[in-house]
Order: sequence, then structure tokens, then C-alpha cells
Amino acid sequence: MFAALCCVLLVLAFAPGSKVLAEEKFQYAIKEFTVPLDHYSFLSNTSFNIRYLYNDSYVDKTNPDAPIFFYTGNEGDIEWFAQNSGFVWELAAKEHAVVVFAEHRYYGKSLPYGSDTFNTSKPEHLAYFTVEQTLEDYAMLITFLRNGRELPVVAFGGSYGGMLAAWFRMKYPHIVIGALAASAPILQFPGLTPCEIFNRITTSVFETAYNANCSANIGKSWKAFETLASTDAGKLQLTDKFHLCDPLKTADDLKAFLDYLEEVYGNLAMANYPYNSSFLAPLPAYPVRQLCYYLKDLAANETELINSMASALAVYTNYTGTTPCMDYKNTRDTANFDDHGWNIQSCNQMVMPFCANSSDTMYRTSTWNLKEYSDKCFKKFQLTPKPYDIVLRYGGRNLEAASNIIFSNGLLDPWSGGGVLQAPNSEVHVIILPEGAHHLDLRSSHSADPPSVKDAREKEAAIIKQWIEKF
Amino acid sequence: MFAALCCVLLVLAFAPGSKVLAEEKFQYAIKEFTVPLDHYSFLSNTSFNIRYLYNDSYVDKTNPDAPIFFYTGNEGDIEWFAQNSGFVWELAAKEHAVVVFAEHRYYGKSLPYGSDTFNTSKPEHLAYFTVEQTLEDYAMLITFLRNGRELPVVAFGGSYGGMLAAWFRMKYPHIVIGALAASAPILQFPGLTPCEIFNRITTSVFETAYNANCSANIGKSWKAFETLASTDAGKLQLTDKFHLCDPLKTADDLKAFLDYLEEVYGNLAMANYPYNSSFLAPLPAYPVRQLCYYLKDLAANETELINSMASALAVYTNYTGTTPCMDYKNTRDTANFDDHGWNIQSCNQMVMPFCANSSDTMYRTSTWNLKEYSDKCFKKFQLTPKPYDIVLRYGGRNLEAASNIIFSNGLLDPWSGGGVLQAPNSEVHVIILPEGAHHLDLRSSHSADPPSVKDAREKEAAIIKQWIEKF
Repeated sequence: MFAALCCVLLVLAFAPGSKVLAEEKFQYAIKEFTVPLDHYSFLSNTSFNIRYLYNDSYVDKTNPDAPIFFYTGNEGDIEWFAQNSGFVWELAAKEHAVVVFAEHRYYGKSLPYGSDTFNTSKPEHLAYFTVEQTLEDYAMLITFLRNGRELPVVAFGGSYGGMLAAWFRMKYPHIVIGALAASAPILQFPGLTPCEIFNRITTSVFETAYNANCSANIGKSWKAFETLASTDAGKLQLTDKFHLCDPLKTADDLKAFLDYLEEVYGNLAMANYPYNSSFLAPLPAYPVRQLCYYLKDLAANETELINSMASALAVYTNYTGTTPCMDYKNTRDTANFDDHGWNIQSCNQMVMPFCANSSDTMYRTSTWNLKEYSDKCFKKFQLTPKPYDIVLRYGGRNLEAASNIIFSNGLLDPWSGGGVLQAPNSEVHVIILPEGAHHLDLRSSHSADPPSVKDAREKEAAIIKQWIEKF
Repeated sequence: MFAALCCVLLVLAFAPGSKVLAEEKFQYAIKEFTVPLDHYSFLSNTSFNIRYLYNDSYVDKTNPDAPIFFYTGNEGDIEWFAQNSGFVWELAAKEHAVVVFAEHRYYGKSLPYGSDTFNTSKPEHLAYFTVEQTLEDYAMLITFLRNGRELPVVAFGGSYGGMLAAWFRMKYPHIVIGALAASAPILQFPGLTPCEIFNRITTSVFETAYNANCSANIGKSWKAFETLASTDAGKLQLTDKFHLCDPLKTADDLKAFLDYLEEVYGNLAMANYPYNSSFLAPLPAYPVRQLCYYLKDLAANETELINSMASALAVYTNYTGTTPCMDYKNTRDTANFDDHGWNIQSCNQMVMPFCANSSDTMYRTSTWNLKEYSDKCFKKFQLTPKPYDIVLRYGGRNLEAASNIIFSNGLLDPWSGGGVLQAPNSEVHVIILPEGAHHLDLRSSHSADPPSVKDAREKEAAIIKQWIEKF
């Protein structure tokens, strides 16, 4: 598993057929802010602009010191996160806060070298694409927005954005009074968490969504695919049954197809929301259950299994019925840089080990091999990953000195395995959502929300209110 | 006042005639550790070696998890700090700790480009000379020394080294369980502390050391020097009376001479220790009192004043009687890079505003002008200072989230004006030494120590012991 999964979700999110900005519920001004390309050396004075979204419509105009709710943007276009993080807006309305969503450097339109940013023949273009540079961007932007005023600023983020929010509070506690880090797998790094945990949790989600035959069928499907793909006629059949954009021709094609399926299962578990959503792809409510409905009976033979798999996977790949083909190579949307972005981050600092064992998961057995991983990174981007950067800087499991961070995790979210599930002290809050998928609590309130997410949001709101009042 | 004062002390310390490593009381192995030149980008893989001093002779060999006392080296050869920080050694003996003194990059023998390091025609050579790069060096070194073990590591530092120790604990609380920051002026930055405070405290030290005529005489001396230097014959007299290495010839020479005297007064206040010392220069016990003895009577006229000044200043410039001449231009020791070092740091991040008002100090009136300061930095090193870097990153006066730091300050130390004198919370300890000069508490115990420094060391030892025990 070369690319970390976190990335893939974005590739898919922007794949053709999905319309991620469909629900443009929230309004904002789009602004720009100039930041140094390199905050940490005195080599050059180069700067560029990052984007941020700004809305102060909830603010009581007689209060010059309104709180700022600051979303620490992650791996994608910031407008997408703004539209998919309704809780920030709902709470801002209650607390009369300014809402700011900051775009992460190297994503969306915050590209230091414009359209030439990801030119891998110019390694200096990618050199400043790091967590620390990004956090400094945010620290400078907040300092600018505060304009000399002492204001309570709260950081928000989900997934990698939640990791940034947590780290931001750890490193800049003088700038943000606290952070809500939703589904933030800050422990998904070498030496901290077993590499198979993500795939184990995903398996468990599929085992329990409808009945256990679902994961059993998926577990058997790998061999069935390989058997069928061993002949040219079989490859054609697969291409046809799964509506593949690129026909299966080579062993590499088959590998890409099977890798893609593994990613789809992870994405489905993440986006296993209780209502229709378009977060990763247009999906029905509880999509894992929907998919598993097609796999509820143990297939009698490989042909039957392949047919059921085709029906099942369409829940993810073509729920709208309008997707022309299954883009298992993720190559269709060349104008979107975001897949480049996360692939690069996985090759510099975001080294997240993944592996699986077929004996206790529905996945194929795969091992984690740092050397291979590094070699691929170097080949692809001339980057040598620094797998221990993050642990060195942010402390791994040693979070005793942290304060005013809420780590929320849905237990149905495969990323929860790398999340903080035990509070290191009384000033760090851990909120567990037994029925929650990937940062469900950050999304807008919905009538179909399970009780645990309502409770979680209430707790989060109360804690954040307390931080603001204490300030 | 171009260069920050912190620097000057080192220039003088290493000036000819002083023998700073005279008392080599402490023994250690000198080792090297390889660090990346740039921790914060993926531009290149260049690395170099920093030095560190290592002594594990106090460790109980049956204890594999002995504490590490880690001195975060500051602006100079690390051996000098090791020999002048006896308290670290004394406490290590009590606590059976490993002692490590780490040399700051760009100082001593830890030069990234060897003898070409300070070649100002190669700006990339100076680019990575920052606080953040240095702290990462230390984090990596400690991680290496821990070798996978969970060990209680305590940071120690005095002056700029104390600032580093405090910031290290703030940013890497997972690596050091606490820090003793002795005389660490972390608030001596733009917008945090009035720029005249250093010179006010120095004046007050001179006012009270013997009698108030001392500072009154010094206050009058500036005009006396200018009057005398207005003729060539007068310049010759001054050159002769003060044994100047470079004869006074131009207005620039006079300016350099008077600037030097101002620096001497600051250094004397800093090194106003209760016993003979060789910290900044070979000095008698309570050198300010000694100097002021020569200025105890209000001079009847300018000639008498100049003569008394010559006797008084010899306390600093030639206490040993062996210094050939007064090196007011600090140009004698060209082999020593340390003056380069601090001058460069004052021109990148260590922008410390200084000013004075002749109406309430013994100094000439001078203003703080950032524009002029920046222009000089650019002219000298092609560096544009970032005066707000430090406040942005380390929080200025907002230290509420800090924990396990001891800030100790001697009230007779001019740097105490930029020190932390009020604890932001119960986990940060402020220890005041009413009779203390510059990090007197970090020095070896001495029979002449005033009670306040003994008390301070006892408190410090108890707090550090508690951190270790809690760990």
C-alpha cells in the first residue's frame, strides 16, 4: 500500500461524477494572505498567497473582541472543507464568532509556484510543503486577523485538519485557546500504532453492518478476481462487469484495480454516515450496510461472487447512476492537484504505516516496508521521507503537557485506531462516538444523527464555551 | 546601540588578556553528533556535526534509566559554559544524572561550513542559524542519547541558553520534563518590555554599589570625554590615559570608545559576582563596587573626572595587570567567531530593542530605531531581521500554557528587566535573587554566595527533584 489512505479519499472525492461542492450552504468572502515560502531560514524572502474564507456575519457588531473559529485547512480545496464542516458554522452562530477557514499551502488555490508547483523536476518547489511551515502560515494569519487585539481563537479541524488543529494548540497555545481535533489520527505514525489497525477496524465495520457474510465474501473476492483475470477473456469480463474506465490488460492493471477496491472499503467505512452524503463520493445513508446488502449471502461460487461484488461496489462508484465508468487508476481529473499534494506529504513527513493480515481481516496480506516505501518516494518525487519527524516534534503518545484539546473519534471510523482514545490529563478531552464514522461530529446537524453524535456536539460546545468564558 | 548587549559579553570574554577556561574544574568526553543543516525543508540532505560534552561518572551503574541534565548551549564555545555552570554538575552528582552540554550550531567548533561559515558573501551559509533549527538539533541529540529509553531529561541554561531551555520545554515537553532558565530575558523583544529597562537597572546597580556619586560621575563623563576629544591633543591624552589599543583619531573612534564604555557598565552589572571570577573578564569580587570606589567623590572638574574614570575602568579592563591595552574596538581576537555569531543572530531573530534616557540614567540618550537597525543588518550580513519571529513562536508574555519551567532572575542583573518575574501559573516557578547578578545561581557554590542564591539553588534542586520523581 503505497499511498497513505488519507490521500485517496480526496482523489475520489474529486473524481468525475462526484459533485462535492453540491451543497453550498455556507457563505463567505474569499480572501488572500501573504506568507513567506520558508518561515524557518533566512535563505530568501520569497512569499506567496494562501487563501482563506471569512465570515463575520454572526458577530455582535458592538463586540470588537468576538471569538474567531479558525479551521486549520487540510488536504484539499478549503471551500470543500467549509461546506463539509457545518458544526463550525452552527457553533459560530451560537457563540457569535468570526468564522475563518484557512487553506493549506500547496492545496486548492494556495500554490506557491502556481501551476508549476508540482513540477517534480524542480525539487525546490516541493521543499516547503510541511506541517511546520503550514502551522506558521496559520499563526501569522491569526496574528494578522487579531490586529493587536486579545481574542479567543479556537482551532477546528477534521482528519489531517484535526491533526493540524491539535498540533497547533500544542505548539502555539498563545495563539489558540483550544482545539477541536475531530478524527485526528495523530498516532498513525511509525512505532506508535500497529500498522494493521486501520484494516482491522474496516473489516469489523463490514462484518457488523449487515451480516458477517459481507466481509467473508470480500475476503474471498481477491482470489476470485485473480482467477478470473488470469485469462484475457476474464479480464474483458471484469472490465465489462465493473465498467472500468481503463480496460484491465496487465498485471499492473489488476494490481491497481484490487488496490483501488481496498481503498474503497476504507473510504466507505469513513463515510458511513447516517444520511445521504457527498463527502467522499455521492453515497446513500449508511453506505456500508447498503453495500453489504448485496453480499449478505455467501456466494456459492466465484462467478456469483464477482457478480455480487459488481452490484455491491456500484453503491460507492455509481450511486447516482451517472458515473460513466469506474476510475480505478484515479487518472481522470488531471486538473486537480490535491492527489499530488497528499502523495507528496506521505513522502516527506506523513509516513503512516499500513499493513494487513488476510487471516483476521477481509484484506489481502500486506506488510509495511519502510525501505520500499522510501525508494518509491524518491523515485516519484526525489523525496526521502523523514518517518520520525512528526513523533520527534509532536511527542507521539507522550501528550502529558498538552491542554485544551478535544480529541473526538467515531469507533466505526478506521482512523480511530490512530486517534487519541485516552486523555493524558484532565485538560485534554477525549470524546468517543460509538456509532460515529470519520469526523461525523464536525458535520452539520441532521435529523438522522445518532444520539452519540448529538451528545458529542453538546459536550464539545460546552467545553469550547468554557474556554471562551475563561479567556 | 547596534549589536545587542548579550553579544558583547562574549566578545569581551574572549578578548586577549582574559583566560576564560582558566578554571577547568569539570571533566567530560567531547563528542560529535550529526544534524541536518535544515530541519524544516526538504531542499537538501546536507548535514554537519555539532559538539557535545558528556559525563556519566555520577550515574549509578545499576540504573540504566538515569536522568540526563542537558545544557542547551548558547552563544559561545560549549566548554566555556560547562566550566561556568557548576550548579548543573553539583546537582547531577546529587541526582546521579548524566551531564550533557550541547554546543549551539554556528558556535565553538559546531560550524556547518567550517572556517567558511561566516563568509557573508555566501548568504546560504548563514541561513540556518536560528533558534528553531538549534532546538531541533537538541531534540534529535536527546532522542539519540535516550536510545529508545524513557528517561527524565531536564534542560538547563543561562542567559540566551536559558531562553533556549525555556523555549525547549515549551515546544518539546515530550522530550524534557522541565527546564531551569536562569536569567533568561525571553521578554526582551519588541513590544514586550520598555527598551530602556536594561540601562535603568544598570544605572541603579551603579547608584547603589558604593554611593550615588558613581553613577553621577559616569553620567557626567560623556560630555567630559567629548570635550577632551574635541582636540587632537585631547585625543592623544585619552589614548594614553586609557591605554587604548587603537589610538583615538576620528569621530568614529570616539563613538566606538564611548559605546564600548556603555557595554562595559552592562557587563560589570551582569558579572557583579560576590567573588573573583573570570566569566566575562578577570574581575574582582563585586566589581561594580570596586569600580565605584574610584568614583566615590563627585569630580571637581573634567580633568579630575577623566583621571578617576581611567582608574575605575581598569577594574574591568585590566584587573590582572597584564592586559597590554584596552581593546575598545573588539578587533583583536579575529580567530574567535563568537562575536560574529551573536551579531548575526541579532540580525535575524534576536532583535532586542535597547535605548536610554540621560535624564534618568547614567547613559547617553539613545533611541530604538528598527529601520536603522535593519538597514545596518542588511548592509553587514545581507540579512533582514524578523523582529516578531520570537514573539509569534514563543508567545511573548502569554505563557499560560507553559509548565515545568523555573525562571530565576537576579534583581541586580540588567537582563532581569526582560525576564519572567511573575509566574503565569502554578507549574511555572519564578525565583528572585535580590542580590543576584547574571545567572549567579547556575554557577558553582561558593563560600561568598549571598543567602538568596543558596536559597534559590535549594528551591531549584527541590523542584527538579520533584519533576524527576514524578516522572
